[in-house]
Formats: sequence, C-alpha cells, structure tokens
Amino acid sequence: MTLRDLIERKRDGGHITAEEWRDFTRDLAAGALADYQVSALLMAIYFRGLDDDETVALMEGMLHSGRTLDLRHLTVGRVDKHSTGGVGDKVSLILAPLVAACGVAVPMMSGRGLGHTGGTLDKLESIPGFDTRLTLERAAAQVERLGCALIGQTGEIAPADKRLYAMRDATGTVEAIPLIAASIMSKKLAESLTGLVLDVKTGAGAFLPELDDSLRLAATMIGLGARHDCPVVALLTNMDSPLGEACGNANEVEESIATLKNGGPTDLRELTLRLGAEMLVLGRAAPSAAVARGLLEGALASGAALERFREIVAAQGGDPRVCDAPAAVLPQPPVREPWTAPRDGVVLRIEPRTVGRGITAMGGGRSTMEERIDPSVGFRITTRPGDRVKRGEVLATIEARDAASAAAGRAALDAAITIGDSAPPPIPLVSHRVSASGVELLG
Amino acid sequence: MTLRDLIERKRDGGHITAEEWRDFTRDLAAGALADYQVSALLMAIYFRGLDDDETVALMEGMLHSGRTLDLRHLTVGRVDKHSTGGVGDKVSLILAPLVAACGVAVPMMSGRGLGHTGGTLDKLESIPGFDTRLTLERAAAQVERLGCALIGQTGEIAPADKRLYAMRDATGTVEAIPLIAASIMSKKLAESLTGLVLDVKTGAGAFLPELDDSLRLAATMIGLGARHDCPVVALLTNMDSPLGEACGNANEVEESIATLKNGGPTDLRELTLRLGAEMLVLGRAAPSAAVARGLLEGALASGAALERFREIVAAQGGDPRVCDAPAAVLPQPPVREPWTAPRDGVVLRIEPRTVGRGITAMGGGRSTMEERIDPSVGFRITTRPGDRVKRGEVLATIEARDAASAAAGRAALDAAITIGDSAPPPIPLVSHRVSASGVELLG
Repeated sequence: MTLRDLIERKRDGGHITAEEWRDFTRDLAAGALADYQVSALLMAIYFRGLDDDETVALMEGMLHSGRTLDLRHLTVGRVDKHSTGGVGDKVSLILAPLVAACGVAVPMMSGRGLGHTGGTLDKLESIPGFDTRLTLERAAAQVERLGCALIGQTGEIAPADKRLYAMRDATGTVEAIPLIAASIMSKKLAESLTGLVLDVKTGAGAFLPELDDSLRLAATMIGLGARHDCPVVALLTNMDSPLGEACGNANEVEESIATLKNGGPTDLRELTLRLGAEMLVLGRAAPSAAVARGLLEGALASGAALERFREIVAAQGGDPRVCDAPAAVLPQPPVREPWTAPRDGVVLRIEPRTVGRGITAMGGGRSTMEERIDPSVGFRITTRPGDRVKRGEVLATIEARDAASAAAGRAALDAAITIGDSAPPPIPLVSHRVSASGVELLG
Repeated sequence: MTLRDLIERKRDGGHITAEEWRDFTRDLAAGALADYQVSALLMAIYFRGLDDDETVALMEGMLHSGRTLDLRHLTVGRVDKHSTGGVGDKVSLILAPLVAACGVAVPMMSGRGLGHTGGTLDKLESIPGFDTRLTLERAAAQVERLGCALIGQTGEIAPADKRLYAMRDATGTVEAIPLIAASIMSKKLAESLTGLVLDVKTGAGAFLPELDDSLRLAATMIGLGARHDCPVVALLTNMDSPLGEACGNANEVEESIATLKNGGPTDLRELTLRLGAEMLVLGRAAPSAAVARGLLEGALASGAALERFREIVAAQGGDPRVCDAPAAVLPQPPVREPWTAPRDGVVLRIEPRTVGRGITAMGGGRSTMEERIDPSVGFRITTRPGDRVKRGEVLATIEARDAASAAAGRAALDAAITIGDSAPPPIPLVSHRVSASGVELLG
C-alpha cells in the first residue's frame, strides 16, 4: 500500500486502517514520507474527515512515534488544561500553579502564539531567564517536587504530530476537527494524564466560531480520552471579546500575577476558577466542583498559589522577583498612549481577532513560526461590552515600541471596538459543559 | 498574498485572480514554491474545481512559463490530436504521418505510459534508434520538411505544467477536469496549433468513465481553445474494450504499420479515419469530413502515409526497415502462448484496465515514471465483444519475456475476458462529437 493509494482512498471517502495509520505515523516521524504527499492527504482529510477509528489510530500512532513524560509513579492525579486559543487568554499561567498548590499534578505542555492567538510559552519567556525547554527527565523531577512544570513540546514528544502540525499551518488544513483532536490528545496522553480539561473557545475570536464544531471537537476529544483512561471534560467559553484586560505578552504575565494575588479582572478570575474546579475533581482532590472552588479560592487568598508560581519560576531559571515587582522585572513598552471613546454610547463589541492581529502588527505576535516577538507591546483594554461610556473617556492603553507601532495599535483598536446606542445582550462566560455523560447547557 | 492564502481561499470555494495564477505559475516554474503547499492547493482544486476564468489563467500561466515550438511562419494548417489515453490506442502512430501526407502539419507532442494506459513515446522508442527528445529547433525544421515530428514534452515547454503534472500523479489529483484541460492545452498551444482534435475515451477503460465528465472535459477544452484562436473538436470514443488487437509496445508499432499499409483491425482503421477527417477539415485541407475521408483513404491505399512514416522514422534516428520487416527490426517476446476460450458462448467483455494492468505486471508498463519497460511484451487479442466462440478456440496470444511473465499475462486475460450466453448490446465506436457549435449524438 503506497501513500498515493491512501490519498486516493481518503479523497474518495474511504477508510484507512489502524495498521496503515501506524505505518504512516512511523514513517512520518522517521522523515521517510514526501511532504507533498502528506499535505495532499491532509487536504483530503480536511474535506472528507476521519471516522472515530481512524482518529484513534492516527492519535495513537502519533503518541507512540516518540517518548512520553512518564509520571505513572506519582500517586496524585495528573491533570492538564488545554485551550483552543484566544486573545488575552493567560489562564494557564494562573491555573497551573493554583491547581498544583491544591494537590493535583499539572504537567503542562504549551504552545507558541501564531496568527491572532497568543501562546503560553511566549508569555512565560517574557520573564527574564525563564526556560521552557526542559528535558523530559528534568520536567518529570520538577512535577514530582513542585506539582507542575511549564514546558513546550520537545522533539521527543509525538514527533509525528510535530511534523504534521508544522505542515498544517502552511497548507490551510489546521481547522479539521479530527486532526485538531488527534494532535492535542497525542501530546496530552504523552504527559501520562489521568484527566484533561478542555477550554473550547466559542464566538467571534475563536478558532472554531461555530457552536456545532465546538461540540464536535469536545465529543471527539472525550472519545479519544475514554479509550486511554483519561476522562476529558470540556467547557465552552466565550471568546467574543478578549479575556481580562491585558493582551500581549509581558502585560499578560503581570495580570496573571495580579490574579494569583487574589485580584485581577473578574472574567479572568472566574474562568480560572471554573476550569480549576473541573481539574481538582478529575484529579480526585475534591469530591465536587463546589468543594473544589472553595479550595481554589483559599489558595488564592492565602498566597499559596502565588508562592507555587514563584517556586516554578525559580526552578525554570526565571527571576522570581517578578512576583513582587512585575513592572521592574518584565520588559516595559517605550510608548504608552491612551485610546479614548470616540462618542457617547454603549460598547457593543471588542473584536478579538482584530485585537490579536493588532498585537502582531505592533511586533508582539507572529505570522510564521520563525518570527521573533517583542514581549513588551500590546493593549490593556479596560472596558467591556455593555459598558456605558462618554466621549473622550479612556477605554484602553496602547503599549508600543515606537510611534509607528503605536499607530498600528491605534488603528487596530479603532477597528476592533464598536460603540453604539443600545446595550448588546449579555453573553455567558461559560455556555456549555461537555463530559462523557453528555452536554449541559449553562449560563 | 501568500500561497497559504490562496490555498485557504480555494479550500473555502473562493476565486483566485488571473494575476495570482500568473505569479503562481511563474514561481512554480522557477522552483520557488514549497511542494507541500502546491499539492495542498491541487487537492483543494480537486474538491472545489476552478471556474472558467481561473482555468484560462492557469493554462496561460503554464503556457507562458516556457518556450514554444514556433511554427507560425508555416502557411499550412497545424493540427494535433490528443487522446485521454486508453489500452491498445496506437492511433497517433498512424494518424500523424497520414494527416501530414495529406498536407496538414502535425507537430505532435506525446507522453509516456503510466498506470493502465500506454504511451506513444514508449511505443515509438521500441523502434531501434528512434529519438523522441528532439530540440525545439530540430522539431520545427522537421515539421517544416516532413509535416510532422513526434516528440515528448521537453523541459522548455510549459515547465510549470511539467512540475504540476509530476506532482498530481503522486498526490491523487490527476482526475480533476480543469487541471486536465489546462495541462493539455498549455502544451498544445505551445505547438502553435491552428486546431486540435480531442479523442475523449469513454467507458470501462477510460480515465474518466462517466459521460458527464467526458462532456465537461470536452467543453472546457473547447472554451480554452476558443480564447486562443485554436478551434477544438472532440470525439467521444469507446474504450470498453482495447482498440485493435495488439496491446503492448513493439506489437502496437507492428499493428500501426499494418494499418498504414491499408490493413489493420477494422476499429483501429475506422477511428483513425474519423479523427483524421476532423484534422483535415480543421487544417483547411478539405472542405468536409466526407472529402477528407476520401483523401485519407487514398493516402493509405497509395502508400503515401507509410512513406511519410518511413521518412519520419529515419529523420528521428530510427531504423526505417521497420516499415518493411517489422518483426525483424522490433524486439520480439521470447515466449508466446495462446489463450483459449474456457467455454462455448459469446464474448461479453474484454476489460481494458485489467488488460493494461496485465501488461504492467508482465513488465511492459510502469507504475512510477522512473521504471523502465520491456517493449516486447503484451497481448494480441483477436476476439471482440459479441463474437461467438467455441471452447478451446484461440482468442489471444500472450507475448511474454519468461514463464512467470506469461503466467501474469494469463491471469490478467482470465480476469479481463468474460464469456457468457447472450450477446451484449453493440457499443458505437464514436458516440458523440463536440465542437463550439454544440454536442452531436452519433452512432
């Protein structure tokens, strides 16, 4: 069976067997396949999809194409959170130390920003010295000691996924649900998890803006987890406007530290608590979400979560004084300019994609994986949809590296923020909860 | 605009502009595009198609990516024939010298066999010394002197097409009608034609087995030709069973010479005359198909067509004695075995794909462009669907290089030839004629 046969079969809507997926991922990891055939197969999958058995087989093939972060000797639950990516989404930075402080291990593997969404690794690396490229051995030892490590996907973890993922971005095949699900789960199962919480962003700024697609992604992930004794719970959460106030890199670290200090924007704190409660229950550290929430609130109020973050920063080579004086440690933007309301009215929309692209235009994001980013630039958007505002009122701060960068940022906010006359209907922060038991409509 | 943007736009059913196609083909010919992005675009085109303007722009971009065989100084008409490919289809070998002998120039660019279909270049090269790799200058001089040259696509002609075509075969994107039409026309217009006759094979052994697809291909080609003052006439011809008796390479040359000597199998002679008549009319060498047919029959009966073939063979380095004693000049198979009817009855089917794959299994075809072929092997199938046969009657000869090759050939014929009880309905040799004036139902 040649790769051409597989392409043609998938193109015509046929089924690829588990054995064929195993051979495919093995050859892919070994660099033995022609890229142009792999990308043609990806596009055929984009149009034809994968059935459940194919998705499982592809995911398992990618998982077994590399090494794993073996944590099975730990007695505590091992739970990670994965977000499909949004703008201003710095939840991971708060959640990982917070949940670890409550007794569940969080071996967190994150990605970099691309396109309009930011990435946890980029944000962490705005802390001077912070090293996200730990060896698997060092990461395992840190999880054992501190309950948490914050790392990127090494070349050893699911190398077949790494090759596919790199190609998908360049070939317009990112937005294929079975490929998304198999890619995420191959990496997450390589962390030897006992549970996974999935934050599926919905709305204008989401990667999958359609509700049906979000539910389908959740169901696919739950199915993949079930076959590997890794229960998955998904929350569908609002990405119609950026999460929190800070959008960028260094400024998001600062906002995360404020939240770990029991402050921070309400929506950010609330989403962190909702996701964290699911993690504690999955990790058997709490019998119910209500109890879990109490534990989490306690760890924020007591400073335990912040202390855990400080220890993680120090363990990974970062400057722990970032916890005490973020503005003194983190890179600061040379230019700060206010953005004011152009008229009286009600804030109707803060379009996250436009905000995200504005950060890229200012130098704080990337269009290709090779670009370097400036961690100091971004926005602080202090208004929210539904707010009544007066003309001239400051609604945001543009944080830029120079006048041109500030102008690009201003243009993005001009396009992103819409002010109208009557208040928009409120959108719930968490709209659905999906688990093996089914879909609950919330909010 | 990046290639990724084009891929995503086509994937989502959008339109790519003429300027974007021009840049794409220019960069493709220069080797400046990532193969894996090109193949993803091809697969998106497979699913989404191209509209008329896109097909024209792609075709023109490929045409202008290289040099042309400039024959515009000739006063005679310049007409070529293109077949979508079948089994036993040696029409080009007869038609080119025959039409040239009747006063129309035939600058014929042909391809090699791949998969279950044979290729004119492979057949010609079974004549010792025959060189199909002429320079454009030498080919032009030969067309001027003999009215015909039989060549392959050089690296200079439509290099963008050459790259796309090579990739399409490996990526399951061959069977996309706009890509087929643009590919054929970019090469044919590079011959500076004043007319083109298209032989669209229909039926079980055809590349596009569905009638709708055949008509769509014809209409697309006619549309592309019309924009470049190159009228196109398409005949839809039967490929439910192999054409003529010989299927292979050297044996097809022998059968072509027999036909040029005014003999040969009836179906092969008839199809050659039908296509040739269209070529003479398009080339303004005859006022009607009936007059053209008389001219063609005369050139076969007088020996003028055979003499023209002899001159072409000699001009391209081949041994012209092949015209006098084909069996003494052409490579002969070491093993010849009869294939006999397994029962009394009527021949229902001779499945061309199975026959074609049998030739490949015997060593006379190729699965990848790198393989070498043995020109001596193949079949002579002397029966036709509808023939009443007796058990033990010889219906075919297997021509093989050794016992194993013969066994492979026998297995193929066992599978390809079906004998039943009642005669199948007769199938017309030419079912439709399509031109700028519309579709005529024939037969």
